[in-house]
Amino acid sequence: MTGYEHGDFHARIVNSFASQGAMAMIGAELTRISHGVVEIEFPFDRKLTQQHGILHAGIIAAGLDTACNYAAYTVIDTDAALLTIEFKVNMMSPGRGSRFLFRGEVTKPGSNIIVTDGRGYAIGDGPAKLIASMTGTSMVLRGREGFEE
Amino acid sequence: MTGYEHGDFHARIVNSFASQGAMAMIGAELTRISHGVVEIEFPFDRKLTQQHGILHAGIIAAGLDTACNYAAYTVIDTDAALLTIEFKVNMMSPGRGSRFLFRGEVTKPGSNIIVTDGRGYAIGDGPAKLIASMTGTSMVLRGREGFEE
Amino acid sequence: MTGYEHGDFHARIVNSFASQGAMAMIGAELTRISHGVVEIEFPFDRKLTQQHGILHAGIIAAGLDTACNYAAYTVIDTDAALLTIEFKVNMMSPGRGSRFLFRGEVTKPGSNIIVTDGRGYAIGDGPAKLIASMTGTSMVLRGREGFEE
Amino acid sequence: MTGYEHGDFHARIVNSFASQGAMAMIGAELTRISHGVVEIEFPFDRKLTQQHGILHAGIIAAGLDTACNYAAYTVIDTDAALLTIEFKVNMMSPGRGSRFLFRGEVTKPGSNIIVTDGRGYAIGDGPAKLIASMTGTSMVLRGREGFEE
Repeated sequence: MTGYEHGDFHARIVNSFASQGAMAMIGAELTRISHGVVEIEFPFDRKLTQQHGILHAGIIAAGLDTACNYAAYTVIDTDAALLTIEFKVNMMSPGRGSRFLFRGEVTKPGSNIIVTDGRGYAIGDGPAKLIASMTGTSMVLRGREGFEE
Repeated sequence: MTGYEHGDFHARIVNSFASQGAMAMIGAELTRISHGVVEIEFPFDRKLTQQHGILHAGIIAAGLDTACNYAAYTVIDTDAALLTIEFKVNMMSPGRGSRFLFRGEVTKPGSNIIVTDGRGYAIGDGPAKLIASMTGTSMVLRGREGFEE
Repeated sequence: MTGYEHGDFHARIVNSFASQGAMAMIGAELTRISHGVVEIEFPFDRKLTQQHGILHAGIIAAGLDTACNYAAYTVIDTDAALLTIEFKVNMMSPGRGSRFLFRGEVTKPGSNIIVTDGRGYAIGDGPAKLIASMTGTSMVLRGREGFEE
Repeated sequence: MTGYEHGDFHARIVNSFASQGAMAMIGAELTRISHGVVEIEFPFDRKLTQQHGILHAGIIAAGLDTACNYAAYTVIDTDAALLTIEFKVNMMSPGRGSRFLFRGEVTKPGSNIIVTDGRGYAIGDGPAKLIASMTGTSMVLRGREGFEE
């Protein structure tokens, strides 16, 4: 995990994030981009809830997957792309809070497969509370125009 | 999986779904509620995309989790509630299409733990295409006011 | 999923299975090899148990992974190999019975990634009981001598 | 995660581990028992391999599940029991080495659901190599004679 300069992935991730309709819809912003670790945050909003008024599990998955995916972007060549193969999410506490933070980290870089782990936190009056975790697997794509398969 | 009358779960699911901020935001509607099987659908929208213009994996997870969760509601007592413990999603094809359908089915009912499986399809000009699958685990809650843990 | 003749994968799977130390240790045998579906079976043995005298979850995973992996072998070229990237197992009922059957099926074939689903059953006096399910992801390897990564 | 004395869980785990047929078959031993963390180890053996001569994914799952399960035993009451609901394993490097270590840790204790994470390492001539990770979910059982469901 060496040989990457800050500029290589920073601008790429900022631009890519800005092009995501889903992140705009959710109201998310990138709050940290560093080598192997990316964080996104968004405030609680009624439109993000499930039937009990807490954060929808799919929105939690969206936050975790996005943070994990961009963490993986920090360890690939700038001409490579990533395809999410699969992820698993464990819900640990109800998604209640005024704000939520999702951190993605690279657990295992690789030339073909990258494994990432993410954690989601609810931020309110007290200490941040762990609400969910993710393990995700991505495939590195090179010299292919898209996700044609 | 006997002893449930249609009305028991049908109205409950319709009302619960209507109270979800996230489903309204995504533009989803319930299109099938039967014993052990629930389907939801929504049209493609630019606001649901990731950086490549295809459906965001988190939105796919939201569709699958919602369909699976309500499928589980069809096999529990009407005074019980459900808590999603975890789920795993496999992405199989890019989420491209004019419309998407997510079907949740109960694989293993139980008094404490319910296992569901879901599949997501992209619907366009040709045949529906399998884009993702989910296996999810929920815990049945009884006589508890909420998700206090 | 066309173009494969029975002999292409049948002999390959039989030979590969026979070379597995773990399958011999467990006492497993291949009981079905067909296009997209493979089954293995083994009898209950005290040496396969966890602390409560039921089948160890890891042995269940071994049965499911093996069946799923060989199911995937039926849909790849004969000069390609497979690498298990990840799998998820749900335990549904205790592994009690005189005999166990594990069936792996290809859910999504692909030139790079293959997704399989498996189910495990306990066989005793009554009807077979579903004890576990798996979803697994494998990567197709071509022109590489091994799993060097 | 307070209020547990060493003796509470230490003897219980040692006795439970000793009663596992599968751990004896694999040749595993408990090498660490502390609050929230348990490790097991075993040497490479030809009988533990898959067709390429490396550690079988099911044996890796057995090591991870056992370490994670006993880690969870360190944070429950001594009259409670645990049922593995599900786990997910990511394979990161081939299981080659002279010895293998599996560490399970409690990520989220709870009165009903406990989430654990595990990592497996191959130990050879050089530094230990990460070969696999697990996230697992267990249910706490109280006042029930067994796993009757």
